[in-house]
Amino acid sequence: MIQGIGASSGIAIGKAFVLPNWEWELPEQKIDVADLAREFDRLYEGIRTSKVEIEQMKDELREVVGPEETSIFDAHLAILDDPVFMNEIQGIIQRQYKAAEVAVKEAIDHFVTMFDLLDDEYMKERALDIKDVGNRLLKHLLGAPEITLPSDTQPFILIARELSPSQLVHLNPNHVLGIATLAGSTTSHSSIMARALGVPLVVGIESKLEEPIQTGDQLIIDGDLGIVHLHPEESLIDLYTGKQLRQREKKQQLKQIVSVKPVTKDGKEFELSANISSLKELDVALGSGTNGVGLFRTEFLYMDRTRLPREEEQYEVYRSVAERLDQKPLIIRTLDIGGDKQLDYFELPEESNPFLGYRAIRICLDKTELFKTQLRAILRASHYGNVKIMYPLISSVEEVRAANALLETCKQELRAEGIGFAENIEVGIMIELPAAVLIADILAEEVNFFSIGTNDLVQFTLAVDRMNEQISHLYEPYHPAVLRMLKLTIEAAKRAGIHVGVCGEMAGDLQALPIWLALDVDELSMSAHAILPVKERLLTLKQQDARSLFDQLLRCSTSAQIHELLAASQDAPIAAGREIVTKSSP
Amino acid sequence: MIQGIGASSGIAIGKAFVLPNWEWELPEQKIDVADLAREFDRLYEGIRTSKVEIEQMKDELREVVGPEETSIFDAHLAILDDPVFMNEIQGIIQRQYKAAEVAVKEAIDHFVTMFDLLDDEYMKERALDIKDVGNRLLKHLLGAPEITLPSDTQPFILIARELSPSQLVHLNPNHVLGIATLAGSTTSHSSIMARALGVPLVVGIESKLEEPIQTGDQLIIDGDLGIVHLHPEESLIDLYTGKQLRQREKKQQLKQIVSVKPVTKDGKEFELSANISSLKELDVALGSGTNGVGLFRTEFLYMDRTRLPREEEQYEVYRSVAERLDQKPLIIRTLDIGGDKQLDYFELPEESNPFLGYRAIRICLDKTELFKTQLRAILRASHYGNVKIMYPLISSVEEVRAANALLETCKQELRAEGIGFAENIEVGIMIELPAAVLIADILAEEVNFFSIGTNDLVQFTLAVDRMNEQISHLYEPYHPAVLRMLKLTIEAAKRAGIHVGVCGEMAGDLQALPIWLALDVDELSMSAHAILPVKERLLTLKQQDARSLFDQLLRCSTSAQIHELLAASQDAPIAAGREIVTKSSP
Repeated sequence: MIQGIGASSGIAIGKAFVLPNWEWELPEQKIDVADLAREFDRLYEGIRTSKVEIEQMKDELREVVGPEETSIFDAHLAILDDPVFMNEIQGIIQRQYKAAEVAVKEAIDHFVTMFDLLDDEYMKERALDIKDVGNRLLKHLLGAPEITLPSDTQPFILIARELSPSQLVHLNPNHVLGIATLAGSTTSHSSIMARALGVPLVVGIESKLEEPIQTGDQLIIDGDLGIVHLHPEESLIDLYTGKQLRQREKKQQLKQIVSVKPVTKDGKEFELSANISSLKELDVALGSGTNGVGLFRTEFLYMDRTRLPREEEQYEVYRSVAERLDQKPLIIRTLDIGGDKQLDYFELPEESNPFLGYRAIRICLDKTELFKTQLRAILRASHYGNVKIMYPLISSVEEVRAANALLETCKQELRAEGIGFAENIEVGIMIELPAAVLIADILAEEVNFFSIGTNDLVQFTLAVDRMNEQISHLYEPYHPAVLRMLKLTIEAAKRAGIHVGVCGEMAGDLQALPIWLALDVDELSMSAHAILPVKERLLTLKQQDARSLFDQLLRCSTSAQIHELLAASQDAPIAAGREIVTKSSP
Repeated sequence: MIQGIGASSGIAIGKAFVLPNWEWELPEQKIDVADLAREFDRLYEGIRTSKVEIEQMKDELREVVGPEETSIFDAHLAILDDPVFMNEIQGIIQRQYKAAEVAVKEAIDHFVTMFDLLDDEYMKERALDIKDVGNRLLKHLLGAPEITLPSDTQPFILIARELSPSQLVHLNPNHVLGIATLAGSTTSHSSIMARALGVPLVVGIESKLEEPIQTGDQLIIDGDLGIVHLHPEESLIDLYTGKQLRQREKKQQLKQIVSVKPVTKDGKEFELSANISSLKELDVALGSGTNGVGLFRTEFLYMDRTRLPREEEQYEVYRSVAERLDQKPLIIRTLDIGGDKQLDYFELPEESNPFLGYRAIRICLDKTELFKTQLRAILRASHYGNVKIMYPLISSVEEVRAANALLETCKQELRAEGIGFAENIEVGIMIELPAAVLIADILAEEVNFFSIGTNDLVQFTLAVDRMNEQISHLYEPYHPAVLRMLKLTIEAAKRAGIHVGVCGEMAGDLQALPIWLALDVDELSMSAHAILPVKERLLTLKQQDARSLFDQLLRCSTSAQIHELLAASQDAPIAAGREIVTKSSP
C-alpha cells in the first residue's frame, strides 16, 4: 500500500502501464559560426510546428472537456512567445555556439531550476508548463517520436513520473482506468483535467514507493483516499470491486431523488444549489436537480490565459450559463483572484501572507476598469436569465458602497448605449471575514443577500491557513466560535429580511445539516456531486429536532463536544435507514 | 527632501560624513597546487582572528546597549562555524585553485545572491550578516585597514550604503548625530541597535536620491517621518531646531507627572504598564513611573543565537526583571515565534501564510520540551517577584487546558526537586484571534486574566496583513467590527470578574483612550515612551464623558465616522489645555 495524495476521486482496478522516462540524446560538438543562421532557422521552424500542434490539441480537447479546461494551451503558446525564454535560447546559440536543441534544453533547465528554487507551489506548476512545452519543442528539433500509449490492449492504469497536460489530452478515457504519478500536486493542470475527465488520479507517491512499479503489475488506485495498492491480495481486490459496485449502485439510488423536493419531514424547504466554475460542472449540477447556481466562480475565466478576458467574451459565457439555467437563479461572484489564485499576465505583488493580502474586491476597487468590464458583462447577461451579482471578501460598508457606485456607473453607460439589462438586478456579498460577521446587521441594510463563505471565515477566525499541513489539526469548522459567528450572521439577515445562503465546504457537509436547519438558512450551495447526498439526508430530518440539537451545540465549550453531538445525531435515525444516511458522505 | 523609511526616531541637524565604498583588490592569478595547504592555513588563521575580533566587539557593545542586543555577534560566530559556508569556500580553493580571499569573496557573493533572490525580508537580513562577517574575514586575509570614522571633528550625520552591526558598534553616540543609509530596512539588526542607542536613523533613501550626498553637505534627518533634507534652507533649519527644542521641553514637562497617579477627573484609576523585550527598556519604563510590565516578550531571548536558551539562562533574565520590578506585576508572555519572527537554529517550515501558520502556542504545545524549559524558568523566577504567565495566540479552551497541564507538570517537578516558586502564580491569555473574542465568556472561566492583542486581532478580523503596503489603507483599528469585538471581550472578562488589559498598539494610542475608559479596562500596557503622554491625557478626561462618546461610536457604520467623533473629542478640551493634549501623540 502506497500513500499518495488523492487528486481525482474514484476507484480503478487493473494492470499497470509504465510510461518510460525519455532521455534526450543531444549533439555534443559546438556549431560553426557559419551555421548560426541555420540553427536560428531550425529554432523558428520548431516553434512554428509546436504552435500548430498545440492549437490542434486544444481543438481536440475542447470536444472532450469543454472550452474552459483547454485554456492551459494558451499558457503554453504564451511561453513560446515569451521574449525572456526566447532570448535565453537565442543567447545560448549566439554566444556559446551551441545547437538549437542544446540551447532549448539548457534554457528549460535554467528556468525550471530557477522556478523550483523558489519553493512556491504556483511557480513549480509554471516550471512544469515550461518543461512540457520545451519538451515539445525539443521533440520537433530532434525528430524524436511521440510517446504513444497502447490502444489495442486491455484498459490499464497509467504510471508516470509526472504527467503533462499534453500527454493527458491524448489519453482515451476508455483505455485509461486510472493514473498514479510519482510527482505532481492536486492543483496542477493535469490534476484539474483528470477531475474534469473523471479519471481516478493519485499523485506524489514517489517518497513512499519502495520498489518501482512495472508494466503489467496488478494495481488498485483509490483516488478518494489517495492510495495505490501494489500487488493487492485477492481479498483486497474483492473488497474494492465490491466498493466500486456499491458506489455505482449508490449513484443509481440517488438518481431516484433528483426530482424530489428538498424538504424536511416537518416541511422546511431548502434551496440546494451548485458551486460551479465551468459549463461542464453546470451539466452535472442540472443532472442532480439543482435549484440554481449559488456561486459561479468567475476567476477561472481569467486564469491560464495570456491577457484579460474582454467584456464580449465574458458576456458570452455568463449569458450561456444564464440561458442554460432557464430562469433558475445564477449568482455570479465577481473576480476573486489573489491569495492562492494568480494570473500569468496580471502581475500581483509578492506578498508575505497572500491570504491577508491584495485580493478579490480589494483588487477590483483598485483596478476599476478591470472591475467595470466584468460588471458590464454581468449586467448584459442579466437580460437573459435570473442573474445576481455577489462581491467577495467584503470587510466594510464602504467597500459595498464603492462597488455599488461602480455598478451604477455601468448601468448608466449601458442605458446610454441602449443595451438591455435587468434594472433591478440583485446584489449580495460574501460573508467570509470576521469583520463582516460582526457588522452583519449594518451590512444587511446595504444588500439583497448574504452568502456565507465558511472556508475563509474559519481560516481567519482561527488564524489557520487551511492549506498548511503542519497545523491542519487546528482548522476546525465545528469550533464554538464559528457556530456563534454563523448564528450572528444568519440572524442578522433574518432580522433584515434578506436572503441568506452558505457556499463554503460546510454547505455540502452532511454533518452540518442540522445547523443550517436550526438557523433556518434559505440556501445551501455546494459542489454538484454533493447535492443529492445532502438532499437524501435532508428528507430524513426535522427542523424541530435540529433546533433542540443546536441549542445543545451552543452550550458546548469544545469542538470535540460539538462533533460528538453531531455524530450522535447522524447515528440516531438508524431505523429510518442507516445505510442511506451514513454511506453518502462525499 | 528625500523620503526614506524612519527606522529610529528623533531629529538630527548637522553635516554629512559619507562612509566610502570600499572596493577589494583581489589577486587574479590562480594558485599553484603546491600552495593549496598554505591557502587553507591562511583561511583558518583569518577565521580565528575574525572570531577573536567579534568576541571583543561583543564585549565592548555589551557596555553600551546591554547583553540583549549583542547576541547578533553570536549569529556572526555561527556563520564562521557553518559547514555549508565553509565547504563552499574550501571547495573553491581546492577545485578551482583560487586564493583564499578570492574563494571567500565568491562564496559571499554566492550566498548573498541566493538569499537576495528569495525576495524574503528575513533572508535579506541573513544575506547582510553573511556580507558583514565575510568582509571581516576578507579584511584579515587582505590585511586591509578598518574604516574609521573621524573622532576629532564636529559631531556629524553618517551616510552609508548600508551599515553593518559591526560598523555601528564602533560609533560613538557623542559623535554621530544621526544616520541615513541608502539600503536597509527597519527590521535589520542595525536598525534595532540604532533604536537601542537612541540615534535617529532613516533607511532606504537610494531610490529617491537624485544627487549623491557629499561629506560636508548640510543635512537634517527626521527619523519620525523618515525624511532626509539635503541642503535645507535656513528657515527649515530654524523650524527643525525649534522642533528639537520643543521635543526636549515636552520631555521635561512630562517628567513632572511621573509620580502622579493615572486617574481620570472622575476618579477611574488605570494601571499603565510597559511592553518590554529587554532590561534596557525596563529602565526607561521605570523612569516613566510604570505600574509594572504588562507584556514581556520573551522571544528576543531566543533570537540571534546559535541554540535554544537553557533554563538557567532564562531564569536569570526573568529573575533580574522580576527583582528590578520590586513586587510590581510582571506578565511574562511565553514564546511567540513563527509568523515574521524566526530563529536561526530552530528550523520552522516554509509557509505560504506564516501569520496563519505554525506559531507561538502552537509550536509550544507541539515541542513540549522547549515549552517546559521556559515554564520552569518562569516558575522559578516567580519566587522573586510578582510574576504572571501569559499564553499567546489562544484559539480554544483545549489549548489553554493543554498548556496548563504542562504548567502543572512543571510545578510537580519543581516541588519534587525542592525548588521554590509562587504556588498560586496567575495565568492569563492573549485575546488576539477572532475565535478567542467570540468565546471570551468560555475562556474567562479558565484563566486569571485577559490581555487584548489589538495588532493581530485587527489583522485577522479584517484579513489584512499589517506589513503589506499595498493594502495598508485597509488596516483599520477603528473599524466598527473591532469596537464590537473589544466590547465583547472586555464585558466577558468583567462578568467573569477577571482582570483585563490591552497590550497592542491601540493601548498607547491617545485617540483610543475614551474607548478603554468607557469599557472600563483595568490595564493599558504600551511601549515605555508612550506611558507619560497617555497619562497626561488621562488626567484631563472623565469616564462619564467617555461612556456617552462610546455609545455614539457603537452607532457608527463606518470607520470614518468613528475617527471623526474621536478626533472631535480630542479637540474638545481646548480650554483645559490644547497644547498638552494634542502635541503629545507618540
